[in-house]
Amino acid sequence: MKQWVVAKHPKGLVKHTDFRLAEVPVPIPGDGEVLVKTLYLGVAPVMLRYMTNETSFERPLRIGDVMIGRGVGTVIESNSPAFKKGELIQTKLGWREYSIIKDDPYYMTYKMQSKDLSPSFGVGALGMNGFTALIGMQDICKVKAGDNVLVSGAAGSVGSMAGYVAKALGCGKLVGIAGGAEKCGLLLDKLGYDIALDYKQPGLYEKLDAHFSDGIDVFFDNVGGILLDEVLGRINRRARIAICGRISEYLIPPEEYHRPRNLYRIGLKDAKMEGFFVYDYQEHYAHYELQLAQWIREGKLIPLEDIGHGLDAMPEALISLYNGTNGGTRMVKVAP
Amino acid sequence: MKQWVVAKHPKGLVKHTDFRLAEVPVPIPGDGEVLVKTLYLGVAPVMLRYMTNETSFERPLRIGDVMIGRGVGTVIESNSPAFKKGELIQTKLGWREYSIIKDDPYYMTYKMQSKDLSPSFGVGALGMNGFTALIGMQDICKVKAGDNVLVSGAAGSVGSMAGYVAKALGCGKLVGIAGGAEKCGLLLDKLGYDIALDYKQPGLYEKLDAHFSDGIDVFFDNVGGILLDEVLGRINRRARIAICGRISEYLIPPEEYHRPRNLYRIGLKDAKMEGFFVYDYQEHYAHYELQLAQWIREGKLIPLEDIGHGLDAMPEALISLYNGTNGGTRMVKVAP
Repeated sequence: MKQWVVAKHPKGLVKHTDFRLAEVPVPIPGDGEVLVKTLYLGVAPVMLRYMTNETSFERPLRIGDVMIGRGVGTVIESNSPAFKKGELIQTKLGWREYSIIKDDPYYMTYKMQSKDLSPSFGVGALGMNGFTALIGMQDICKVKAGDNVLVSGAAGSVGSMAGYVAKALGCGKLVGIAGGAEKCGLLLDKLGYDIALDYKQPGLYEKLDAHFSDGIDVFFDNVGGILLDEVLGRINRRARIAICGRISEYLIPPEEYHRPRNLYRIGLKDAKMEGFFVYDYQEHYAHYELQLAQWIREGKLIPLEDIGHGLDAMPEALISLYNGTNGGTRMVKVAP
Repeated sequence: MKQWVVAKHPKGLVKHTDFRLAEVPVPIPGDGEVLVKTLYLGVAPVMLRYMTNETSFERPLRIGDVMIGRGVGTVIESNSPAFKKGELIQTKLGWREYSIIKDDPYYMTYKMQSKDLSPSFGVGALGMNGFTALIGMQDICKVKAGDNVLVSGAAGSVGSMAGYVAKALGCGKLVGIAGGAEKCGLLLDKLGYDIALDYKQPGLYEKLDAHFSDGIDVFFDNVGGILLDEVLGRINRRARIAICGRISEYLIPPEEYHRPRNLYRIGLKDAKMEGFFVYDYQEHYAHYELQLAQWIREGKLIPLEDIGHGLDAMPEALISLYNGTNGGTRMVKVAP
């Protein structure tokens, strides 16, 4: 079988030469171990930080180690009472065609229930991205009928589902912010947004004023920084802000972070701001999957997928995340 | 009967000459009206802003109007099906010995259940102050066993109960911040705090470092501004911050507000910050009263009261709020 190993620790953005494709025998599961066949692998911006060992929640990657990554696979052989042959699971497969996993919290394995739907959804709408969108909109922001909702990073893996979730929960006006005409077109044509705002065009905040003359009730934020501050300046009483990401701050040191003028409005408006991490909500995953799967069947959530083909395509899938203009959930189909 | 009316709209701090004591007949309740005998009246910093018509939630006060204020009274005569003679209620009585009220949301009337306890608690521990402490610690901060808890404005009407509530919910280390040795003594001797920090002494933030070397889980904030920013710099993962007040910002214009360095830590630490207003939680008052009354009976909450005597004492009670060094709930006993 094939697997991708780390050839170099990236300097700056990740490059093809940071990976090496290796051929190895399909592993044989030992006692308590499970052999999984990879179907789909996802990519995410955080993977660059796995390669440079800059996250606190993933083990260090040495040169020659198999690249870390989550995906969807089928249990082929199980020597663990926790898994049965044929089960469809989301787990830390790594970038390889077959993986050995164990019944261990490290893997954060989740067994999928919705077998009538595409297994690819396990990388997106029925996986961590979809659960993140649902946690933010439902559990944190408690979106209700008529709420004015704003999403930043709206064309991304999570943002592309956050809008659908807000609409399914009955929100009123739904505005998405993304970069460039292509992504903004996706928001309107494929992702269910009422209004798309291009942050690369001038006048973003004036447009927020115009579209939210009656204020913002819910903000699902992937950006942070100045945008978050400007939104705080426009919130309604009892507004709710879910902090999903803060991409504007990932590449600059804390002393350069924007210092907000409008934090006091959390108190003034009896509003809420809350950061969250999907892995803190594991006990609810089964319920989340049922909810999201139902919306997919009803046509209320139409997952936007961007699928590469074959394990060979993994480095390109990751690299293109950092300069890509596509939206939705980027992944690679490794096996049918 | 006697009543206090507004003689002048205060300029700067409130003075005795801003009030005038008037003698009027006890009013006669009309159809749908209720005559209430005042037992206790509370005072609160917001009352200065009633007198200058600077709040959005209270009706304008003209010269000669009876001063607005909440208190506890007994229903003497009722022409409303909503009230029975003998009921003990918290409502907007105004500064007078007898009041007419109606079954109208304006009055935000709450009927007290705990008749075995002092009616004075209706101004504090079993009224809006106690409910505020409980909402902040229980509903917003979800205090649990072992949490490291910090309260600012800890000797005030709400802060004096917030500590007890946190302890009753099983918190770990409980630290209060107040101004001056006298208030800090109260925190330790009468209000159940483990540690008292005097913000008027140098080195407050170094003391926070020392006492919270293992971080802050819960912050109940009455102050805002720089202190809130410094606390954000010391929060643990999934910390919760209840914004009850922001006294550091009430007397300066927004452009002079402190611009925080550490807001990004809400996202980094998957933490929560939430402002709240007790009147948004009316549906839960009866439950809150039962909970707080039980803690009083069990000795887990020992209300600290500062009681003046006779309606004549009202202006002094309010004035002393702004320069007082006492702690706890300040009120006046109008009738036995």
